[in-house]
Amino acid sequence: MGETAEFALYDERVAAGLQGSAAAGGGLPAFLDIHHSSVGPGTLTARIETRPELMTPFGNLHGGVLAALCDHVLGTVCYPVIPRGAWAATTEFKVNYLAPVTSGALQATATIVSMTKRTAVVRIDVVNDGRPVCMAQGTVLIMAPKGE
Amino acid sequence: MGETAEFALYDERVAAGLQGSAAAGGGLPAFLDIHHSSVGPGTLTARIETRPELMTPFGNLHGGVLAALCDHVLGTVCYPVIPRGAWAATTEFKVNYLAPVTSGALQATATIVSMTKRTAVVRIDVVNDGRPVCMAQGTVLIMAPKGE
Amino acid sequence: MGETAEFALYDERVAAGLQGSAAAGGGLPAFLDIHHSSVGPGTLTARIETRPELMTPFGNLHGGVLAALCDHVLGTVCYPVIPRGAWAATTEFKVNYLAPVTSGALQATATIVSMTKRTAVVRIDVVNDGRPVCMAQGTVLIMAPKGE
Amino acid sequence: MGETAEFALYDERVAAGLQGSAAAGGGLPAFLDIHHSSVGPGTLTARIETRPELMTPFGNLHGGVLAALCDHVLGTVCYPVIPRGAWAATTEFKVNYLAPVTSGALQATATIVSMTKRTAVVRIDVVNDGRPVCMAQGTVLIMAPKGE
Repeated sequence: MGETAEFALYDERVAAGLQGSAAAGGGLPAFLDIHHSSVGPGTLTARIETRPELMTPFGNLHGGVLAALCDHVLGTVCYPVIPRGAWAATTEFKVNYLAPVTSGALQATATIVSMTKRTAVVRIDVVNDGRPVCMAQGTVLIMAPKGE
Repeated sequence: MGETAEFALYDERVAAGLQGSAAAGGGLPAFLDIHHSSVGPGTLTARIETRPELMTPFGNLHGGVLAALCDHVLGTVCYPVIPRGAWAATTEFKVNYLAPVTSGALQATATIVSMTKRTAVVRIDVVNDGRPVCMAQGTVLIMAPKGE
Repeated sequence: MGETAEFALYDERVAAGLQGSAAAGGGLPAFLDIHHSSVGPGTLTARIETRPELMTPFGNLHGGVLAALCDHVLGTVCYPVIPRGAWAATTEFKVNYLAPVTSGALQATATIVSMTKRTAVVRIDVVNDGRPVCMAQGTVLIMAPKGE
Repeated sequence: MGETAEFALYDERVAAGLQGSAAAGGGLPAFLDIHHSSVGPGTLTARIETRPELMTPFGNLHGGVLAALCDHVLGTVCYPVIPRGAWAATTEFKVNYLAPVTSGALQATATIVSMTKRTAVVRIDVVNDGRPVCMAQGTVLIMAPKGE
């Protein structure tokens, strides 16, 4: 249990390129200010800091922030283990919120549990200052590079 | 099938207050620029316009936008049918992405399928210019007003 | 909303062949005594009768009966709309139990909401004597006939 | 990650009583011939042997067997950590099938990841002769003993 799938390829340069801020491309990752703190074969950890703009009027983190963070790491964890030019399209996931979040940092770890040429199934754990606050599992479709 | 639960209460003033922009409170709903276009007993339709900031570098809508939109309507649809002061805490949901989105408007309709004093189960359909692009189902925990 | 996908093919003979008891092949469908009461393009309704053997020691229907019924209709609804020889492999689903079941018949209706050459996404509603007791959504991978 | 929640109570006699065959009560657990091979605080491992009656006509394990097994362990893992007389009602779960199963034994391990007085969130891994074939996560509602 808890193990990671084995991978036919692991592109260390792709992994190295993912390290650090995901905000450069703009959009939702920039709004959330996602930082990829650790990238390995079949695993990726991303971090965001809570801030007032991510809260609801009731003072809790908006659940959509956690859902969007899960969606982000679910696809991104696949890139180092798929061919260059291939595309990791998240097709579905399920999320459970475990505890409210009011402050501090969020750390989301995605782990590929199972992988074929066509699909990867990924598990995600999100902790808030060390405490589990969210867990998810979902499926990514691997789309071959064009021309293949 | 496809029917809506029956509700012990429906607060039309709460429903009317939800109509229109959800951006006033700031945060993620403002970033997404969510607009509640229709609110009824056990149903809510919200709309967002795609724009470059919501896209991935590949030109498709970021999946996290759809996930966050689903999360938002999942809890919000409950407010007109729960007591004032009660809190609708989304506890879990599952989303399937059906087709990529590249432009146009998104319309998410949430429908409460089943409701007890403690929980509501909600179904969500998201269409992009009339075409189904996302569907979800999830659970909201109803937290009684403090002091009850 | 609530609409059914459009289909490139609909094989009425396959649909007709599915009508009636699913118990002939033995196994879990025979244990549950599943009966396909209605089959159409992208839709299938199956029925089972509760009986003491399907209950828990507490007198409620075992949740696994509902889960297995959902799994069954999720794949089966696809056969009339995929090529002969192709295989509909359920790859994931999510189920919400809405109310306990203590007696009577269960009727599960599966509807294909979205379909591509590779996948179908299906929604399921289960009613017990007319009352919603379970809802599900999931994904089927369409495996081409061998040699294609 | 992968950790187990902490529990306010752990009733070793309840745990000991769960050890062994789950078939004595009849019904679906008897049809599947579920055997609880290991029970601990917040964790339970159950085992079933594949046999022709659990297969589809195509020779693969019926997905409904895995779904029903997940449903079974999802609720059962809770009993040693809830008050005597309380009831663990599975309210939702999501399952991903990772690989087809054609023979051998299935071992399902359920782990409570998060627990409050009202709910437990559980993760499940199913292996077939050591190989991951199914994973799930879901929610159990804890219903207090009557009179409380």
